[in-house]
Amino acid sequence: MARHIFRCPLRWADMDAFGHVNNVTFLRYLEEARIDLMFRLAPGEGEASFTGGSVVARHEIDYLRPLVHRHEPVTIETWVTDITAASMTVKYEVKDGDAVYARASTVVVPYSLVNQRPRRITAEEKEFLERYLDEGTVAA
Amino acid sequence: MARHIFRCPLRWADMDAFGHVNNVTFLRYLEEARIDLMFRLAPGEGEASFTGGSVVARHEIDYLRPLVHRHEPVTIETWVTDITAASMTVKYEVKDGDAVYARASTVVVPYSLVNQRPRRITAEEKEFLERYLDEGTVAA
Amino acid sequence: MARHIFRCPLRWADMDAFGHVNNVTFLRYLEEARIDLMFRLAPGEGEASFTGGSVVARHEIDYLRPLVHRHEPVTIETWVTDITAASMTVKYEVKDGDAVYARASTVVVPYSLVNQRPRRITAEEKEFLERYLDEGTVAA
Amino acid sequence: MARHIFRCPLRWADMDAFGHVNNVTFLRYLEEARIDLMFRLAPGEGEASFTGGSVVARHEIDYLRPLVHRHEPVTIETWVTDITAASMTVKYEVKDGDAVYARASTVVVPYSLVNQRPRRITAEEKEFLERYLDEGTVAA
Repeated sequence: MARHIFRCPLRWADMDAFGHVNNVTFLRYLEEARIDLMFRLAPGEGEASFTGGSVVARHEIDYLRPLVHRHEPVTIETWVTDITAASMTVKYEVKDGDAVYARASTVVVPYSLVNQRPRRITAEEKEFLERYLDEGTVAA
Repeated sequence: MARHIFRCPLRWADMDAFGHVNNVTFLRYLEEARIDLMFRLAPGEGEASFTGGSVVARHEIDYLRPLVHRHEPVTIETWVTDITAASMTVKYEVKDGDAVYARASTVVVPYSLVNQRPRRITAEEKEFLERYLDEGTVAA
Repeated sequence: MARHIFRCPLRWADMDAFGHVNNVTFLRYLEEARIDLMFRLAPGEGEASFTGGSVVARHEIDYLRPLVHRHEPVTIETWVTDITAASMTVKYEVKDGDAVYARASTVVVPYSLVNQRPRRITAEEKEFLERYLDEGTVAA
Repeated sequence: MARHIFRCPLRWADMDAFGHVNNVTFLRYLEEARIDLMFRLAPGEGEASFTGGSVVARHEIDYLRPLVHRHEPVTIETWVTDITAASMTVKYEVKDGDAVYARASTVVVPYSLVNQRPRRITAEEKEFLERYLDEGTVAA
């Protein structure tokens, strides 16, 4: 079991008029962590891969402390807690060392844009995702 | 008990490369519905009002069907399910008539930007929020 | 000659940490005005229409006064200053009555996403665009 | 004379429904390059520094070729072409090696958020900016 580590760059405009990174923008950061895991690292190509489409079915996110723009990236740890025939659940911590800004989880459904419908997770994808599997983790 | 109705305008750029309104953007729509409720309609002014600051403590959102850009706004119904001394929970449906695109809920904590700390909900605010209270609603 | 009037809704998150609508967001507003003109009002359908693709070749924008979020839309007046075989130039004012926040112009090239190349403006489109033509206007 | 080099990370959601990085997002990239130059590298602190506020007075941008999301950053070269008592003009190229995606220029006015008015460029800032000065460059 390993966690996927993504060093997520902030943008100055991620802050809102209250001077903090806007709560919605955290979901954008989580998307970037998933893109790195599912588009850059995961196996497969074209329609039968994650780059051929995927749909978010659900998000949960708890905000623990405010984040302010700085020039250094923030760390996003991502791991997998559930793999079914046609969906996967990932959990994340947005953090600097022990200081956690947010904990979240997302249910993702692989989706074929060509066929316009959900598709099953392939054996190759399952094997890949299992490297990040940590079912016992207490979740957001 | 009444639901707050917000007609949320879409922007063409809300769609992502998959040709649907991006999942993160739905949270932006929910923010707009809350802004309309808490900044335009709610009582109070300045530091001791919602416009003086508020923090999102938690979101949950379930995506039920894809939304594509069109020139007409989408409807967001918002109601309140819980009011504590220092927080409120709102629930939403993003919909066209009976067709629901997403159901969501948010825990909001009033926050004084001047004092840099959470503040209590005022009696006036509580009375306002209770007009939208519907505890019995089955939630997202 | 008529100007196209678009009442552009603001979003709270359009403001940045300096408390004003961010300069980049003004370009998003201009896009919305163009979308209304070119996707909702302009003739044609599918690949041989503006909805089948268009590319921005150039923007110029002058910022004249700061804009702060409010619940009412801001007005964007758009008109056409130049139509060539394969491009059009539109100019805009972002304003409330006589108070102008920004003046801008954009060169747009119709582009067929199917053929992956620029296409010519159709006679029907030209006739439509000429309703908004005002070559003599002093430009941004 | 040196150009400021900023390696700008893309986000997947920077692409629009046409499958390219949206034209408005390029201005966001330019903002990030300026933030790196003016907030991270430039001298001064607090109100009398660029972090104490700055206003964009004008943008010009020419789009030369489409940019598609990838995991590697794109390069933004930035230099200064004009420094007046109370403004500066910067020019940029967004590029991969010799392949230029966009050329642009921005007029920036230092602005004191505390005093709510433009301020003069300090001698220290001028000296800093002159390191990036290249008046002879043919501009966008």
